[in-house]
Amino acid sequence: MTRNISVEGLDQIPIEKQRIELVERKCLGHPDSLADGIAESISRALSRSYLEECGSVLHHNTDQGEVVAGESLPKFGGGTITKPIYFLISGRATKTFNGINIPADAIAVEAARDYIKSILPTINMDRDVIVDCRMGKGSTDLQDVFRSCEGKVPRANDTSFGVGHAPFSEAESIVRGVAAFIDDTLRPKYPVIGQDCKIMCLRDGDAITLTIAMAFVDRYCSGIAEYIEQKNFLTEQIAAVAKQFTRRSVNVAINTADDLEVASVFLTVSGTSAEMGDDGSVGRGNRANGLITPNRPMSMEATSGKNPINHIGKIYNLLATQIAQDCVAKVDGIEEMYVRMLSQIGYPIDQPHVASAQILTKPGVNINSVKPDIEAIIDEWLEKTPTITEKVIRGELSTF
Amino acid sequence: MTRNISVEGLDQIPIEKQRIELVERKCLGHPDSLADGIAESISRALSRSYLEECGSVLHHNTDQGEVVAGESLPKFGGGTITKPIYFLISGRATKTFNGINIPADAIAVEAARDYIKSILPTINMDRDVIVDCRMGKGSTDLQDVFRSCEGKVPRANDTSFGVGHAPFSEAESIVRGVAAFIDDTLRPKYPVIGQDCKIMCLRDGDAITLTIAMAFVDRYCSGIAEYIEQKNFLTEQIAAVAKQFTRRSVNVAINTADDLEVASVFLTVSGTSAEMGDDGSVGRGNRANGLITPNRPMSMEATSGKNPINHIGKIYNLLATQIAQDCVAKVDGIEEMYVRMLSQIGYPIDQPHVASAQILTKPGVNINSVKPDIEAIIDEWLEKTPTITEKVIRGELSTF
Amino acid sequence: MTRNISVEGLDQIPIEKQRIELVERKCLGHPDSLADGIAESISRALSRSYLEECGSVLHHNTDQGEVVAGESLPKFGGGTITKPIYFLISGRATKTFNGINIPADAIAVEAARDYIKSILPTINMDRDVIVDCRMGKGSTDLQDVFRSCEGKVPRANDTSFGVGHAPFSEAESIVRGVAAFIDDTLRPKYPVIGQDCKIMCLRDGDAITLTIAMAFVDRYCSGIAEYIEQKNFLTEQIAAVAKQFTRRSVNVAINTADDLEVASVFLTVSGTSAEMGDDGSVGRGNRANGLITPNRPMSMEATSGKNPINHIGKIYNLLATQIAQDCVAKVDGIEEMYVRMLSQIGYPIDQPHVASAQILTKPGVNINSVKPDIEAIIDEWLEKTPTITEKVIRGELSTF
Amino acid sequence: MTRNISVEGLDQIPIEKQRIELVERKCLGHPDSLADGIAESISRALSRSYLEECGSVLHHNTDQGEVVAGESLPKFGGGTITKPIYFLISGRATKTFNGINIPADAIAVEAARDYIKSILPTINMDRDVIVDCRMGKGSTDLQDVFRSCEGKVPRANDTSFGVGHAPFSEAESIVRGVAAFIDDTLRPKYPVIGQDCKIMCLRDGDAITLTIAMAFVDRYCSGIAEYIEQKNFLTEQIAAVAKQFTRRSVNVAINTADDLEVASVFLTVSGTSAEMGDDGSVGRGNRANGLITPNRPMSMEATSGKNPINHIGKIYNLLATQIAQDCVAKVDGIEEMYVRMLSQIGYPIDQPHVASAQILTKPGVNINSVKPDIEAIIDEWLEKTPTITEKVIRGELSTF
Repeated sequence: MTRNISVEGLDQIPIEKQRIELVERKCLGHPDSLADGIAESISRALSRSYLEECGSVLHHNTDQGEVVAGESLPKFGGGTITKPIYFLISGRATKTFNGINIPADAIAVEAARDYIKSILPTINMDRDVIVDCRMGKGSTDLQDVFRSCEGKVPRANDTSFGVGHAPFSEAESIVRGVAAFIDDTLRPKYPVIGQDCKIMCLRDGDAITLTIAMAFVDRYCSGIAEYIEQKNFLTEQIAAVAKQFTRRSVNVAINTADDLEVASVFLTVSGTSAEMGDDGSVGRGNRANGLITPNRPMSMEATSGKNPINHIGKIYNLLATQIAQDCVAKVDGIEEMYVRMLSQIGYPIDQPHVASAQILTKPGVNINSVKPDIEAIIDEWLEKTPTITEKVIRGELSTF
Repeated sequence: MTRNISVEGLDQIPIEKQRIELVERKCLGHPDSLADGIAESISRALSRSYLEECGSVLHHNTDQGEVVAGESLPKFGGGTITKPIYFLISGRATKTFNGINIPADAIAVEAARDYIKSILPTINMDRDVIVDCRMGKGSTDLQDVFRSCEGKVPRANDTSFGVGHAPFSEAESIVRGVAAFIDDTLRPKYPVIGQDCKIMCLRDGDAITLTIAMAFVDRYCSGIAEYIEQKNFLTEQIAAVAKQFTRRSVNVAINTADDLEVASVFLTVSGTSAEMGDDGSVGRGNRANGLITPNRPMSMEATSGKNPINHIGKIYNLLATQIAQDCVAKVDGIEEMYVRMLSQIGYPIDQPHVASAQILTKPGVNINSVKPDIEAIIDEWLEKTPTITEKVIRGELSTF
Repeated sequence: MTRNISVEGLDQIPIEKQRIELVERKCLGHPDSLADGIAESISRALSRSYLEECGSVLHHNTDQGEVVAGESLPKFGGGTITKPIYFLISGRATKTFNGINIPADAIAVEAARDYIKSILPTINMDRDVIVDCRMGKGSTDLQDVFRSCEGKVPRANDTSFGVGHAPFSEAESIVRGVAAFIDDTLRPKYPVIGQDCKIMCLRDGDAITLTIAMAFVDRYCSGIAEYIEQKNFLTEQIAAVAKQFTRRSVNVAINTADDLEVASVFLTVSGTSAEMGDDGSVGRGNRANGLITPNRPMSMEATSGKNPINHIGKIYNLLATQIAQDCVAKVDGIEEMYVRMLSQIGYPIDQPHVASAQILTKPGVNINSVKPDIEAIIDEWLEKTPTITEKVIRGELSTF
Repeated sequence: MTRNISVEGLDQIPIEKQRIELVERKCLGHPDSLADGIAESISRALSRSYLEECGSVLHHNTDQGEVVAGESLPKFGGGTITKPIYFLISGRATKTFNGINIPADAIAVEAARDYIKSILPTINMDRDVIVDCRMGKGSTDLQDVFRSCEGKVPRANDTSFGVGHAPFSEAESIVRGVAAFIDDTLRPKYPVIGQDCKIMCLRDGDAITLTIAMAFVDRYCSGIAEYIEQKNFLTEQIAAVAKQFTRRSVNVAINTADDLEVASVFLTVSGTSAEMGDDGSVGRGNRANGLITPNRPMSMEATSGKNPINHIGKIYNLLATQIAQDCVAKVDGIEEMYVRMLSQIGYPIDQPHVASAQILTKPGVNINSVKPDIEAIIDEWLEKTPTITEKVIRGELSTF
């Protein structure tokens, strides 16, 4: 069956020429990202277990859950978490199938705790954390859907859509680059940097301001003097990296709400603000491409935690992003590209109601000259939609 | 101090001329909307109590919370909820201030239960519902911020932004119109219509498809024959209303996943899918204008439940929407208008880092001819930012 | 089959001649009694529902549960509960049986809320109370036991025992009489008396001291002067009633921990200390006869909440008490009587391993002269063991 | 001040000559004992922390808490816990004192998890266990009591009592001996023996029946044949040990509810029935001497978890037991001895309202000949009441 693929030209001011652009990323230790990461870990663990025990991924959606902040008394040199952070696992999962019992609750708790441990190495898992579980049972009807489609392309669970774009703008690249620099280079050397960083980039014309809220880990900082020193040092390091992405001016500011005179600073025991005041929820932070981009089309669907088989809110968001990036990489002449994919409930997921690409071509490039290649790439990706599922289960695709 | 207001022209394909447009609304009984509504009710109740007891609204953010689905056995003529729906209240609130105790937990539980009762009149509040509360204490630092600004314009709690647009497109108007028609006209007459409706509108060129997932209330429906009859009747009624908004073709489909032959339909005991499988979270549904509009810029911030004094994620989203609508109403020549407002943490909220309006003018209208009027309107709204707070507390502005 | 009934003489100092005797009763609003009452209400509601839906009482044990105290600010004239009291329902119940679904969780929540409402009329059920439920599923094996014994006498679920005694001593009669006087006569007239009274009676030789901890309801008391006046008045009233039961000296003291000078008194908003500091658990308060009697043999089993069909910890405690009272009523010459009944798991409950009665006869009465009558009464009660079940379900037998 | 000590003779049938005697012990892995052990661990951890941070033990009572059973699928060779066991910590503790913050919630969670880990080595702490905490704040009034008595003997928190007796009867000695044999000798060699054993001893005349419910750990048992073999072997071993305590006949039966033909046996994944059906509560199991003895006076107070400074329900139960044992050890001529200690709220705990000892002397021994020695021993123990507190905090006195 021919797929309904629509490629059309777009006539708008390119992102780089719009006056104001905003980009944000909540790094892994941010409460919303913790919620996302736990949700996705649980979905992966369940998927693996379903595959092992039943031969196919059964119905589940763990794209819910709540991080309820604890209370803490951070202190230079090392403070205390006084009230544990509470994590509620909700969502639903198939617990029995065809006579096989899947210990879904135990799997979920373990996956959540393992994830928290990996992201927050400073936390005492036996003291500072409560992981609770109120996960419901999966619905029979949807299980039927799954059962019926063995060997076939799964059918969409909902009428829903996904969006993606490429390439990344300068501001987007800066945020991604700085996030990676903090995570891969700085933190391994300077454990004072908590996992909870929120990076906000404002481009106002050609002036870029990078505002970073970065949780410092108190045990690695002896006092206000060292805090200031470290903050200054990190500001410089990050500015240098940010400048590699742009010729525009870049100004970096870390923890602008600090009041240094009274030593009121962003100091934490564990490196996350979830320890003392900030709750988090699944689907409230980064989109599937790792960014929050109000200048771009965004989907409100939580990508993390949804089942990777037939949940459009997950698959199409990931797929749309992959498609846009692939087109930009392989086809010359694309200035900007937006992909929107709309499913229809009950139909095979490789047959969307419409897969629509909007292309802003580079000067002098006609939309018709790139259209066939783009259509072919989209069709090819749709053909291999199930590979998205596999990549997700293997943890090769990030969802937030 | 002069405010930083930026008005610029926009050169893009108007929404009505884009090939694909998607608009969605989750009505009041949808699990995500329940979460939003509860969060906002709690914030309002707390605000009123703070005003009464302390003379000013104290720090709180209840923009968190989780609806964990119950289990039910719907049945034509009337079924049973077998496992209550669990509502978790989280977030934080000031519980003592200046020697005054505010019973924040009790207020929150009461506000939540009152709200649920008002939205889901079919539910047995003593049997089908568990409202739990793990709300934390408000942070002292932020209380200080509040205290210091008595009589002055509050200072932004964060570097964050809000977005809004006007006017509504046809698809947007249809979704809003149909939602209002269901809530105000149909349900009062036909109680079989549950509060949980999800309205999705797809415009593909000039073909509009309205897909509605509508929970039927089992006690008001005697059997599959009546269900079909009612569904057909409602489909006609809704189609007639939708057509009033457009000359395009409109196709309406209700509960497309029904399998009528085996009587597998969207039947519920209470009128919400939260009774048997669908969880909900604050901030995952409608944006501040009541819609989900992937073709438009959107903010990821949850508007509901945030404190209405200095939380940018709430105030600027509401303000940006008001501004855009006001400009379109008062200034001729605007085809489309997008407002983005960016705060800077610690600065007065009437002094945004930038308030940026992008205007797509009508054919023949020059941006410069409308600019002064628009700037004036924006400035005036910023001047009266605190009125947003008051309207929110009085419940005059919807947040989702 | 002949039942194993053992009746033997007892040679000990009668209770009234022992120097020290202690008796205690926690009235209905005491946190432990609230837990008991909720547990028993749930069991009754489930039993009725099982009978209606399935024709026989299915396996359940709800003899667990926790009352976690809230926080309050009592104030003469009327104060506030600031943090709701949290009730956790646990235990287990059969949720599906033979294709029939029993909404056990919903039934439990409703029964608990109804009970709280009835006992604590001063409480705002929508604001001051959280009823949560984590009840598990009943075990299949025990369901089998139930199924297999339809029409026959149920088999004991455990090797366990029950105890009972008669008649009540003077101290015991005083505690029971005073409790009834407070509940039936005083409180209806003086709503200032909270439901949470703890009555402790110490008899030291011929001196009886009655120490009562009585929660006053703040809205019905205008100030410390009225509090003192009411306390004095109630002390007199209660002393007068207590004296009707004895010729010994009686001293009554209410709320001995009060410090009247600083107005630190036992004042509550709702009439129960559960509102601000005292937790409660099932089975930690009164025994099946409504008393705590350290001078008498006692069973540690919680009578409340256990299933009334085959749970020895419930049935034999109730039965032993009934038997002892019946013997004392019908057979002359009994000074004191203790009944101990021991089951053996898997055997019919009307065939205990041993039903043992120890009799302290009145002066001049030989044990052999009363033995046959007592044996006959015990045998008769064992014969009609199932009537205990029926009475419990109809709420005719109090369990605490 | 002279203490009110009463020593009187007792004229009753010695326990060994009563026809029926019942004794029970719930070993460490029984759900009720788990609850007790966790409660006591938390109290110890808090006490140590209060001493370290504040110089004295502050108000707390953690004698509440609930074990809500999980679900499991035991299987010879090794099964799975499918739903984690849920532990709720409640009670209350002082969280701030004199400007010092004590992380009471974090301490409680850690103490609970550490204890569970130590008792249930087979359990996966990251998968099979949820430890939740809803502990309240300690009440100010009681803190005042503590503060005021620095350097002095603490004052009783309540009008309450404790009981104790000595020596242990044969049946009691057998239960204690067998429990110790299982814990110290058998389990270290045979890990198939779970921590959850319930030992019930019935002496009917000279016939002793020891009924043991013993959870087998599935991973250490290959199949039904090995189960039977092990059960038979353990039955023999235990019978041999039991016989060392008595010349009476002893019959031992393990897991009498097993149905070997259908392999329905007491098999568990973790060695505790809390994994699949049995809830537990603090204070519902063993008394302070480690036993449940319906033939002896018992206190209903939960000894575990209460604060060890001024909580009579804890201190007097422990003290009464110590006194009775010490008297029997040091004074000749005591056949049986019962100690009852009654406090009066607000008075120093070394000045009980009355400390009453009832003595059944050996044949030919006059009560007056032992009275002075016993009075002296009681007085001496009261003098050193605070040593009970110290021993409890150091973990030298078992409370269940």
